[in-house]
Amino acid sequence: MATLRVSDVVPSPADDCERLRKSFEGWGTDEKAVISILGHRNANQRKKIRETYQQLYDKSFIAELESELSGDFGKAVILWTYDPPERDARLAREAMQTNKKEINRLQPLIEIACAPPSPHHLIAVRQAYCALYDSSLEEDISSTINLPIRKILVGLMSSYRYDKQAVSMEIANSEAELLHQAIQKKQLYHDHVVWILSTRNVFQLRATLQCYKQKFGNPIQEDIKSCGNGDMENLLRVIVGCLDCPERHFAEVIGKSIIGWGTDEDMLTRAIVTRAEVDMRKIREEYFTIYKSSMEDAVIRDTSGDYKDFLLTLLGSNI
Amino acid sequence: MATLRVSDVVPSPADDCERLRKSFEGWGTDEKAVISILGHRNANQRKKIRETYQQLYDKSFIAELESELSGDFGKAVILWTYDPPERDARLAREAMQTNKKEINRLQPLIEIACAPPSPHHLIAVRQAYCALYDSSLEEDISSTINLPIRKILVGLMSSYRYDKQAVSMEIANSEAELLHQAIQKKQLYHDHVVWILSTRNVFQLRATLQCYKQKFGNPIQEDIKSCGNGDMENLLRVIVGCLDCPERHFAEVIGKSIIGWGTDEDMLTRAIVTRAEVDMRKIREEYFTIYKSSMEDAVIRDTSGDYKDFLLTLLGSNI
Repeated sequence: MATLRVSDVVPSPADDCERLRKSFEGWGTDEKAVISILGHRNANQRKKIRETYQQLYDKSFIAELESELSGDFGKAVILWTYDPPERDARLAREAMQTNKKEINRLQPLIEIACAPPSPHHLIAVRQAYCALYDSSLEEDISSTINLPIRKILVGLMSSYRYDKQAVSMEIANSEAELLHQAIQKKQLYHDHVVWILSTRNVFQLRATLQCYKQKFGNPIQEDIKSCGNGDMENLLRVIVGCLDCPERHFAEVIGKSIIGWGTDEDMLTRAIVTRAEVDMRKIREEYFTIYKSSMEDAVIRDTSGDYKDFLLTLLGSNI
Repeated sequence: MATLRVSDVVPSPADDCERLRKSFEGWGTDEKAVISILGHRNANQRKKIRETYQQLYDKSFIAELESELSGDFGKAVILWTYDPPERDARLAREAMQTNKKEINRLQPLIEIACAPPSPHHLIAVRQAYCALYDSSLEEDISSTINLPIRKILVGLMSSYRYDKQAVSMEIANSEAELLHQAIQKKQLYHDHVVWILSTRNVFQLRATLQCYKQKFGNPIQEDIKSCGNGDMENLLRVIVGCLDCPERHFAEVIGKSIIGWGTDEDMLTRAIVTRAEVDMRKIREEYFTIYKSSMEDAVIRDTSGDYKDFLLTLLGSNI
């Protein structure tokens, strides 16, 4: 379900490195070459390029990109070139350190915790975080994010969900009831809510959310909205949305980053780079369903130059 | 710091399997041969024996042991033969399903969560649990263990601690204060307590506990005791003990399993089998400090036959 198009015949990592090295030579950089190589290599192939580049030229490939590329294009290519768990660890760190308003600040953390490509990926992110920053990700969440949001975020970030389809309608029924009680009492971060959202497998959670709607009439997100419009309510809606249907969540993230005045390039880059080799095909479909227009057209309209070309490459377009 | 003595020259897994197969042949089993082989192989070597046995004889080696061995000896050998993360996943499952009184029931879970050989081992246990039981370990803790103990146990079991020595005296100071406040208010499972105990690295935690003693006069475990003598207090003391000094904790577990009327073989087996290739040398020293006698002598006095021989082999004795 990825949109990343890996070339039919992939050159050896050494050949790729040689072409990349050449693209950096002399005045300026051959951005087109960078896009045509990195934009068509999967995580494993990019890893080999990083390793081979270091061996051949005794230089960090990422450092090389940092000195050669700039602006939104540079940021996007570098983010794409990191090992995915390391990339997410860096995004999490950055999210905790920015001064954006709470919902924007915490959204990358929620996405990492609630929509990892696999349960093991999330563990790998925590490992990468420890290796980079001399502390655990959960520790840093605890010390930088206030209660009660901290509570659910530590829970979600520590999850290691069962990854097969195991659904009990009995659990769906009883836990829909617990969620409903918490919402009625406006105790959105009740311990029960935290455990349900952070320990259950996603198939079970989706059954519970469906059951909630059948029993109580509204989708849970609407009921959460009726509790208020503060950070807590907004965050819980993002969390539930991300768990329920990550593809719809990311389609909305891309929509929001583009629609209206200006473009939020960081948000757009993050969504496309982190999902291009996961579920971007489905995200594009969801985008079309929500906005009745193609994501590709929106990207073409709102971005330009190498940045645009790189994003379109990751979206699988023939540019 | 292990007591396991791996033979200087280790035969090939195929040779080991052949000898083991022979020891199972005919009437009865040659238990001495089983002890002399398995009692001197590390986790990796045992893994190879399991795999090779399956390949050579198209039979599960564990199933073979189950049909050949019995009693406490059989249980101990089988527990030892499992891959350590799988063994711990099985111990966790068994703990949740027994009807022992709360503190005994939950002790194996606390040990798995608070004293893993490495942070990654705990993740491997959670993975093994998912593979064995079609649900996550945290999910099953949530559904079988009551509040408020559930809360701290899910937190501890989900931990992935930074594993290097990074200590801040500022954190030690402020978190000793938070722990003290919780104890004074008898809110032993306050969210702060849960986060401190389940996210901090063990070096930081030990510094915090030392700081607690300096600031408030008593070791924290004594202050917890003064809150009451219920399950909650007892469990928190075990948790803190296990985090503070796992070697002392396991020395006490072995002491308690042996001292007094009868022997708690399950407890004794668990402690020796799970720590023989981790930190048993230090546990033996702690045992001597606490009980002024050798652990070996106690095992010789309280156990017999093949079971005794196997435990002594894991304790590194020349029997």
